[in-house]
Amino acid sequence: MKILGIDHIGIAVNDIEKMLGFYIRTLGLRFGGIEEIPDRHLKVGFIDNSESSPSAKTRIELIEPTSPESTVAKFIAKRGEGIHHLCFHVDDIEEAIGQLVKGGFELIDKIPRRGAENSKIAFIHPKSTGGVLIELKQLPK
Amino acid sequence: MKILGIDHIGIAVNDIEKMLGFYIRTLGLRFGGIEEIPDRHLKVGFIDNSESSPSAKTRIELIEPTSPESTVAKFIAKRGEGIHHLCFHVDDIEEAIGQLVKGGFELIDKIPRRGAENSKIAFIHPKSTGGVLIELKQLPK
Repeated sequence: MKILGIDHIGIAVNDIEKMLGFYIRTLGLRFGGIEEIPDRHLKVGFIDNSESSPSAKTRIELIEPTSPESTVAKFIAKRGEGIHHLCFHVDDIEEAIGQLVKGGFELIDKIPRRGAENSKIAFIHPKSTGGVLIELKQLPK
Repeated sequence: MKILGIDHIGIAVNDIEKMLGFYIRTLGLRFGGIEEIPDRHLKVGFIDNSESSPSAKTRIELIEPTSPESTVAKFIAKRGEGIHHLCFHVDDIEEAIGQLVKGGFELIDKIPRRGAENSKIAFIHPKSTGGVLIELKQLPK
């Protein structure tokens, strides 16, 4: 598996707009736009790190559930707002999934699905990874 | 406040050595060494992202409690192993703390204390930040 970097840290929030003040005004980070992901019942707000080089930057993704059906709504109901997952940028997601399945890891997605920015994503179950929900993400080539 | 980047994601684990196989062998990341922080009852293992440029890399810090007194031991007892905090690399930690206190944020450390790599660190309480335990870190100049 070839990991190109840490793509983002996903943070579950009740209200993206309400949290922007903290990330943008208080911390001085840069707002990178909002994207709706209807099939996952989510709205995603990007926070960019203005100092990082584009090739190696790690973003923050604020994730707001748009329906109580969303797994993120269930996460917040159970544990409260907070850090939700860690996403690695991979070169080849099908190859990464194949390697993990062969290694006995439990994948939430054995077939990649569509994520933000028209990417292909797959999640590894936290019980395979010491309690960390890990997303793998391949950007469109 | 001037944030220079996301320094690391802190992950609470019961046993650093046991988790190295996942991060190093499975994911192909690079082992960056282990450091003891006796006054915080912690052992910290660094996982480097071999692809990032040195100026902008975001690391993973595996944090293992060395005593049940440690706040990380209490975190694991309550919530299980998993993502524990998010750390921003700041230019001037005293200035950052001053700005946050003035803004009404609850600081766990109003005076910086010693962190890994001989850094100065301070934590912002998660109730001020939408449930995210945030560490600020200033590296020695």
